[in-house]
Amino acid sequence: MTFDIQRAGQIDRASLFHPFTSVADLMRDGPLVMAEGKGVRLKDIEGRSYLDGMAGLWCVNLGYGREDISGAIAAQSTKLSFFHTFNGLSTDVAIECAEALLRRAPVPMARVFFGASGSDANETQLKLIWYYNNLRGLPKKKKVIARWNSYHGSGVATASLTGLPGMHGLFDLPQGPILHISNPHHYRKAPEGVSEREFSRQLAAELEALIAREGAETIAAFFAEPVMGAGGLIPPPEGYFEEIVPILRKHDILLVLDEVVSGFGRLGTYWGSQRFGLEPDLITAAKGVTSGYFPMSVCFVSSKVWDVIEAGSEKAGLFGHGYTYSAHPVAAAAALATLKAIDQEGVVENVARLGPYFHTAMREAIGDHPLVGEVRGLGFMMGIELVRDRAAKTPFAPELRVGRKLLKDLFGRGLISRALGDTMVFAPPLVATKADLDEIITLFKAGLDAVAKEVS
Amino acid sequence: MTFDIQRAGQIDRASLFHPFTSVADLMRDGPLVMAEGKGVRLKDIEGRSYLDGMAGLWCVNLGYGREDISGAIAAQSTKLSFFHTFNGLSTDVAIECAEALLRRAPVPMARVFFGASGSDANETQLKLIWYYNNLRGLPKKKKVIARWNSYHGSGVATASLTGLPGMHGLFDLPQGPILHISNPHHYRKAPEGVSEREFSRQLAAELEALIAREGAETIAAFFAEPVMGAGGLIPPPEGYFEEIVPILRKHDILLVLDEVVSGFGRLGTYWGSQRFGLEPDLITAAKGVTSGYFPMSVCFVSSKVWDVIEAGSEKAGLFGHGYTYSAHPVAAAAALATLKAIDQEGVVENVARLGPYFHTAMREAIGDHPLVGEVRGLGFMMGIELVRDRAAKTPFAPELRVGRKLLKDLFGRGLISRALGDTMVFAPPLVATKADLDEIITLFKAGLDAVAKEVS
Repeated sequence: MTFDIQRAGQIDRASLFHPFTSVADLMRDGPLVMAEGKGVRLKDIEGRSYLDGMAGLWCVNLGYGREDISGAIAAQSTKLSFFHTFNGLSTDVAIECAEALLRRAPVPMARVFFGASGSDANETQLKLIWYYNNLRGLPKKKKVIARWNSYHGSGVATASLTGLPGMHGLFDLPQGPILHISNPHHYRKAPEGVSEREFSRQLAAELEALIAREGAETIAAFFAEPVMGAGGLIPPPEGYFEEIVPILRKHDILLVLDEVVSGFGRLGTYWGSQRFGLEPDLITAAKGVTSGYFPMSVCFVSSKVWDVIEAGSEKAGLFGHGYTYSAHPVAAAAALATLKAIDQEGVVENVARLGPYFHTAMREAIGDHPLVGEVRGLGFMMGIELVRDRAAKTPFAPELRVGRKLLKDLFGRGLISRALGDTMVFAPPLVATKADLDEIITLFKAGLDAVAKEVS
Repeated sequence: MTFDIQRAGQIDRASLFHPFTSVADLMRDGPLVMAEGKGVRLKDIEGRSYLDGMAGLWCVNLGYGREDISGAIAAQSTKLSFFHTFNGLSTDVAIECAEALLRRAPVPMARVFFGASGSDANETQLKLIWYYNNLRGLPKKKKVIARWNSYHGSGVATASLTGLPGMHGLFDLPQGPILHISNPHHYRKAPEGVSEREFSRQLAAELEALIAREGAETIAAFFAEPVMGAGGLIPPPEGYFEEIVPILRKHDILLVLDEVVSGFGRLGTYWGSQRFGLEPDLITAAKGVTSGYFPMSVCFVSSKVWDVIEAGSEKAGLFGHGYTYSAHPVAAAAALATLKAIDQEGVVENVARLGPYFHTAMREAIGDHPLVGEVRGLGFMMGIELVRDRAAKTPFAPELRVGRKLLKDLFGRGLISRALGDTMVFAPPLVATKADLDEIITLFKAGLDAVAKEVS
């Protein structure tokens, strides 16, 4: 890099339109500019070091600066830097990658459709669902159900599917045949005294009622993240999917599992599907498939859907959907290197072993802290919700921006977290060691104590 | 690669869901599998060589296997393999790339917003347009106009914007506040005896009438590719933008220029904007920005739009939109290497010099061929429309699939083209030499003669 620190901040503010950022904050505080990464550590342009408690955006599952993945990218980029898969064209490496992914699917799947991001993949899923029901002669069966607080992407339709009002209002969303049902967050949404099991039954009853009201013949699919991510890090209450799934099956409603965050080991199983015993009809994956080294997304399509598409093909003609970078050969090479490393290094086992420790140790350290309302999550996905009053679960006034205060404090201590409102999130690389997790806990506790002093 | 040719074809058919492909065709004919690329040439897994007349999907502008771009990718991947730009975070290389792009914009632009594909970028533009008019207190001003035969992407909203019925019907599109107006293709759409100038005036009158009917206070933006790409390779008729743009200005309608294909030199100017003297409010770029080596898209946002967003930020809060791979550091490094090469190697000048030759020489070779209805395009974008009867402009019956026949014949001769229905397309790498263009013409003529014999 040719420019100095101060200039970098100026140019950033004058050039870069940041995603999911308050422009006013950026203008006031400037950017924090990273320059290097190795393992679970980052270095900014001033040489300060950080432990990345977020694995980038829950994607750098195998850590930064890995020679196996970067080497595979370099080699493929030299051999065949791009080719596409439109119109029956293909590449050796895309084929190998498709096969490797199918072999690792949690349930038998028929095909993979590639893209470059979780958003584009969920756009694909929506279009597939409508296409499938049109081919089946069910043109009315098109509505899609998602949960409040879900995150499914940032396209017009996928942000509509997403259940976050902050992504709707000023963007005129939701648009399209999308229905939202309750956020299954027991701590915040269950009536007083209702158990998780009972809450799951109530949510299932709400789903049944919605389907009855709309008519099952109008409802095509149900989208869910196994553990909700960007909407607050919310695991399902006990018995949730056991209650929901039979209702979907009964009404011929497809289950689309958004495994963009949970896929490739984050919950301590290879897939979230396995953690919850689910058999989705469609699965969306991205992020961890290349450990974030190269943009790639994957839609897994079950025979239930694929067979209809294949049988209808002669009549339907060209399948008129796709992206230039669907099955980019360098993405495929990055994925193959990533999949190999996940297998060989026991990455999923690492999360299975250390995930429970991480949660137990964090609870021991800060579970009783007066600012902590709930510590929740699974595997290497953890959310810590900050509250003004533990007993009454009273949140802080949003304008206090307590989450942001703590985030900045943690940056100052060399720890990267993410603040979803006042819920602090950790999703470290899946190769993090016990010592790395202990360091997260220690730094977090120190930051929490400091912010507690400031706000009390 | 560890698998042989026959196995590759089998696995492809059994694993890979191809974009923009007829499944029936794929099952019948199998894939054509590429394995290597260097310069303008590709090699398939059987070792056969091809001249790539399509630059991948009009994206590999600088050719395959370039050490400068692959080297930049490898170096950045090793240094910082991923980081994001959410929540005021940044990377040195993303900042440098944003500045480099703004310096090259065709008209002064305020900011760049990054993504990974032209589709995600046009999804961003749609959301920006609605956000902008909400902040301006114009909540009714939301409809977006695009042309029939345009291509703007494959997301639900961007495929809706796209004016191709084959991308609509079975997918239940278009959805959303989108209006389509006439395809400006003079050869096919102008009434008998009407000049290009006069046709442009008629199209402008249609636009005026549409705006009057809908109410200017309901219309937010107009999308256009400088030369339409995937919808048939259609350059604007003479005087088209001169007639259209004042109408947009008069009614406070944003001009969004989709330069995904035309950007970075393809028309013989750095941008299509410059070729047609346009001053767009928003520009979408992708493909050529990294020469296809790494997925990247760029939305250029003018001060007109940005100033409203910045001024509204304190009140609006977090800008709730973005992609994990917005400003991927390795994409930024690939783009910086690409931009440098474009400047240093006179790539735009090469197209400015050889583009007219390419068109003249192709016309000389096949312009009078009985199967050729029209040779059209600009720079290194060429469409050749095949017809059954030149004089009457009668197309072939679609079920004959003459375009596909010729495409397969050309593959057999070692030339990659693309068939958009019966319009054959060439968009070679921008570094193609006169000898490469001559080779395209020679092979194309031979294929055309062979197919002419077959179909007559």
